[in-house]
Amino acid sequence: MNNFEFYNPTRIVFGEGKIGELDRLVPETAKVLVLYGGESARKNGTLDEVTSALKNRQLGYFGGIEANPRYETLIKAVALIENEGYDFLLAVGGGSVIDGTKFIAAAVNYAGDKWEVVTSGGATIQHALPFGTVLTLPATGSEMNKGSVITREELHAKLAFMSDKVFPQFSILDPVKTYTLPPRQISNGVVDAFVHVIEQYLTYPVNANVQDAFAEGLLRTLIDIGPKALANPTNYDVRANLMWTATLALNGLIGAGVPQDWATHMLGHEITVLYGLDHAQTLAIVLPSLMEEKLPQKQAKMAQYAERVWDIREGSEKEKALKAIELTRDFFESMQVKTRFKDYQLNQDVVEPLVNSLVAHSMVTLGEHRDITPEVSRRIYIASL
Amino acid sequence: MNNFEFYNPTRIVFGEGKIGELDRLVPETAKVLVLYGGESARKNGTLDEVTSALKNRQLGYFGGIEANPRYETLIKAVALIENEGYDFLLAVGGGSVIDGTKFIAAAVNYAGDKWEVVTSGGATIQHALPFGTVLTLPATGSEMNKGSVITREELHAKLAFMSDKVFPQFSILDPVKTYTLPPRQISNGVVDAFVHVIEQYLTYPVNANVQDAFAEGLLRTLIDIGPKALANPTNYDVRANLMWTATLALNGLIGAGVPQDWATHMLGHEITVLYGLDHAQTLAIVLPSLMEEKLPQKQAKMAQYAERVWDIREGSEKEKALKAIELTRDFFESMQVKTRFKDYQLNQDVVEPLVNSLVAHSMVTLGEHRDITPEVSRRIYIASL
Repeated sequence: MNNFEFYNPTRIVFGEGKIGELDRLVPETAKVLVLYGGESARKNGTLDEVTSALKNRQLGYFGGIEANPRYETLIKAVALIENEGYDFLLAVGGGSVIDGTKFIAAAVNYAGDKWEVVTSGGATIQHALPFGTVLTLPATGSEMNKGSVITREELHAKLAFMSDKVFPQFSILDPVKTYTLPPRQISNGVVDAFVHVIEQYLTYPVNANVQDAFAEGLLRTLIDIGPKALANPTNYDVRANLMWTATLALNGLIGAGVPQDWATHMLGHEITVLYGLDHAQTLAIVLPSLMEEKLPQKQAKMAQYAERVWDIREGSEKEKALKAIELTRDFFESMQVKTRFKDYQLNQDVVEPLVNSLVAHSMVTLGEHRDITPEVSRRIYIASL
Repeated sequence: MNNFEFYNPTRIVFGEGKIGELDRLVPETAKVLVLYGGESARKNGTLDEVTSALKNRQLGYFGGIEANPRYETLIKAVALIENEGYDFLLAVGGGSVIDGTKFIAAAVNYAGDKWEVVTSGGATIQHALPFGTVLTLPATGSEMNKGSVITREELHAKLAFMSDKVFPQFSILDPVKTYTLPPRQISNGVVDAFVHVIEQYLTYPVNANVQDAFAEGLLRTLIDIGPKALANPTNYDVRANLMWTATLALNGLIGAGVPQDWATHMLGHEITVLYGLDHAQTLAIVLPSLMEEKLPQKQAKMAQYAERVWDIREGSEKEKALKAIELTRDFFESMQVKTRFKDYQLNQDVVEPLVNSLVAHSMVTLGEHRDITPEVSRRIYIASL
């Protein structure tokens, strides 16, 4: 097992009707800015529920935080907060709203160019406004971690930052709030959570029994409940398991003490930036090809994945690994997330722009061995056509 | 899945040589009282290492916190702190030292009778001194939770309290520090951690896929590494896995959203109080008999335990459950922890005093169904002779 530090102070409040707990969780004297995405939060009543639970507190609202939250949008919220003096933020939505709120919390009263919050990787954050979240979309894990991914359109950049200062103080997870999500968001959420686990698991063995067992448990759970979540949108237990699994997939726990990869995410980010695909779609495109490309280095762990997650008992290590890659692709497809560029009307013309974009963002030594160079990335993109 | 709240702000700093991080973790201006148990902490050099890492901070020492830490001892540390003005505590040791430190942290400047900290179950704790821990014995999980069990000899009481105020600020887990532990402490630690998981797992199904998968992963890990930890005391990875498993066995995670039992612990506490057996010995005595007694209520989950933890595929649900009970007892015995009263030179004379002691401590409706009455407890004790 590798050395590690694990710290996660976010309070999870889980269950039906838990939005009512906001009155206990938000300081009584707070002036609260409620941040949200599209109009669905208003239409399905969640914003009303939040407003009512916050009782007599001073409230403001900032809507319109988009998928792949944009600096250009978020900076307006920062100005609003600095002008009107909000001292507590409440993100109501999925990973994009929460990621955006993390940037906003850190950028308010930031001394210097606020984009530095992102370009420093979070290292320059000295202070952030306290905030909580009401999660409505299980997928990214942002509700219980210190990471955020922000897009700045004018720079064609989609970049991550991390800081202990931007852990949510609390996150309310009510599985019932996911009943009305469109199937595409459930599909994306399952794939996103699945790949989060894979990025922290499918590397090389370091005798981390517990982390492996936990990761395998999360993967098996997603394989089991993913299709059920699509088929039975109002099954409480299925949605509850999906929600808690997606949170645990990226709260720091399974990645503590083990090597991590994250190349699939980095290659995927460039696809979203240049061609606008959903985050999960980009992961579903990249991962199977990356697994094939890196099979020699990942073979031991991939055979373990085949055995323990997919119950593949026959064949050599390599045969098991190949079968596992096939089943992984099939799983994404069965979740209605296509796994080839061509399924999204993209062809070989995308390859060089994507590779150039990786280089422009210094993504030139990726993966757990830092050996995914632009040349390797090119092969992965080509294999994904 | 049941509703739950999960909160755990303890920072884990894991790996060889991590005691050196104390300088970063303890406030520079702190006046620190270092608390420890027996003389082993001094003899094996850990206290020196701690002292050196704390550099120029004002330091004091309080040794002699015993296994099953006693109010009568701890209250002396409280007086020392109140007289000398320490403002940060550092527990160096295992669960007993850490549990004791939690009581001390909460009892300093407590308004009222300090024993109330325990008898209120922690509910009356308004404030506690900040503290960290250097863990030397993997077993209880106290290094990453808010619980503590304190014995008050004059009242023949061994009682638990819990409070968010007594989470350690940090815990340093260096697997190398466990190399010199006597085998008996490793045996006890494995059994203690195993039963912690069982208490939160072996109840009835509530469709909590993730919690079940995590619990099963911890149990399988303990079954795998327990014997290796005895056979190869200086195998780093084995000790690292043991240490992290024991912490995760009782940090609130696997118990969130599921029913919990804890009757084995309650019946065991009385054995320690009246007859002085090690905590883990009492658990090894009680659990197999309790599993037999509660088989009808626990059968579904016990069959799942048999399949997923012990790989028992043949037979009816009941047959699988019975086989799992047998293997559980065998596992404890293989870890050199005996599972019958008679192995400890105790006979049927213990039964009535134990039952009376349970009643005296209001332990009259135990277990996940609150149906383990004194009459049922008596049957369990008798079956354990």
